[in-house]
Amino acid sequence: MTKHELFNNILRKQSFLCVGLDTDIQKIPSHLFREEDPVFAFNQAIIGATQACCVAYKFNLAFYESLGIKGQIALEKTAAYIRRNYPDQFIIADAKRGDIGNTSEMYARAFFESADFDAVTVAPYMGEDSVKPFLLYPNKWVILLALTSNKGSLDFQLTEDADGERLFEKVLKKSQEWATDEQMMYVVGATHGKMFEDIRKIVPDHFLLVPGVGTQGGCLEEVARYGLNSQCGLLINSSRQIIYADTTERFAEAAGREARKLQEEMSKYLQWIPSAK
Amino acid sequence: MTKHELFNNILRKQSFLCVGLDTDIQKIPSHLFREEDPVFAFNQAIIGATQACCVAYKFNLAFYESLGIKGQIALEKTAAYIRRNYPDQFIIADAKRGDIGNTSEMYARAFFESADFDAVTVAPYMGEDSVKPFLLYPNKWVILLALTSNKGSLDFQLTEDADGERLFEKVLKKSQEWATDEQMMYVVGATHGKMFEDIRKIVPDHFLLVPGVGTQGGCLEEVARYGLNSQCGLLINSSRQIIYADTTERFAEAAGREARKLQEEMSKYLQWIPSAK
Repeated sequence: MTKHELFNNILRKQSFLCVGLDTDIQKIPSHLFREEDPVFAFNQAIIGATQACCVAYKFNLAFYESLGIKGQIALEKTAAYIRRNYPDQFIIADAKRGDIGNTSEMYARAFFESADFDAVTVAPYMGEDSVKPFLLYPNKWVILLALTSNKGSLDFQLTEDADGERLFEKVLKKSQEWATDEQMMYVVGATHGKMFEDIRKIVPDHFLLVPGVGTQGGCLEEVARYGLNSQCGLLINSSRQIIYADTTERFAEAAGREARKLQEEMSKYLQWIPSAK
Repeated sequence: MTKHELFNNILRKQSFLCVGLDTDIQKIPSHLFREEDPVFAFNQAIIGATQACCVAYKFNLAFYESLGIKGQIALEKTAAYIRRNYPDQFIIADAKRGDIGNTSEMYARAFFESADFDAVTVAPYMGEDSVKPFLLYPNKWVILLALTSNKGSLDFQLTEDADGERLFEKVLKKSQEWATDEQMMYVVGATHGKMFEDIRKIVPDHFLLVPGVGTQGGCLEEVARYGLNSQCGLLINSSRQIIYADTTERFAEAAGREARKLQEEMSKYLQWIPSAK
């Protein structure tokens, strides 16, 4: 998907919501265990209930890998299901990969050839040659970790170098030598609120994938105020708040309601963009 | 496996070799495609030919993930095969994972419960809470990326802070607050040769997992000179040099010969350790 197509989807749906399919088998409603593939059944219901309110789905791969081969099957089935039924959704493999060049090539093959994700999250620690193999696929995206939503982000990401530049700023700058805003996005946690102002000085045009709204405590309005750009430039991820809004047989309806609430709030913020009116 | 057990295996086998099972389906001998699971067949033959010369096997997960579910099956079968037949081998999932706490918990479950690896490699970028969930499993290990073997390691890992401390040094120091040398190792690329002297000042007692000998150009003797400690403290990984030493039907014999060569060289260096004589 191109940046232009993504922005058009955002305008059409009046939403920059990404629903995180972090499906934990220990948290899904018990009646689903009558299904052959409970995780897939859960995902399918969540997707049906939320797809009108979001422009992207993000799979946190850990949740699938923890189930071994069954999890892998549920993941592939769900991604293919979205691709087939809702081709305008942007599908993210939240994998946080990154390895030496020949290995990253293999990961790129896994996510963009064996599977058909639109984007994969990549950790920057190993530098350029760990990222570049993902950039060889046209209209596929790297979403590079910059400033994450967790407490541990303070351990290294905010370290200042001799010139006062913080590590996440160095990541934002250096990585712009590798790809443009047509192929790279950045992960910036909603929990860093006002920091979005600093970040927009370095990456004014890029899309940012923003986790941490909801359960982790980030504020959507604040992120929108400091993070929106002329082409929206934000994908706000919400997972637990939506997918576990209710744990009864009516979980999907509840998820749909939560997604709708977020979409309606986003619709207001989109009015702040001149081109979106 | 405890550190003491690992060291005993090293002394007994006179080897600190880790064989990297980075099995690329495009590079394995063609006659194996007559087998039901060519990747597993390749691994099984390599393991049979090398197990006497090494103390560890490392799976680079990208190579398996790039094959989708078939790759996942080959991975699990191979790991279980080693565990069953060669229980003294230390089995590493080279996954370079690392995510927010609840997600890292899922990865820990994947590697230490669903599967039975001894260790998993973790990227430090997201800090403490991305690492800690892996440390809840007794006798299981985190191998944290410190200074990697690739060119991209220069992009961020060597960045100096205001006090002249490099990022990889900060990782080595900070992470010692999270776990001792009984549960944590570090990845340090062989390509950084003399840097091992600096590293040993910060982590004198830890094991280091060292990729980059062979194809990537690192020198084993140099690593041994600057990296060995009183309990060996090194696991040297070699992959392509061993597993693709020959691409005919005699590939396993050739792999065994390469592993033997490395083991014999290592045996000499082990004499430098007083306790190993």
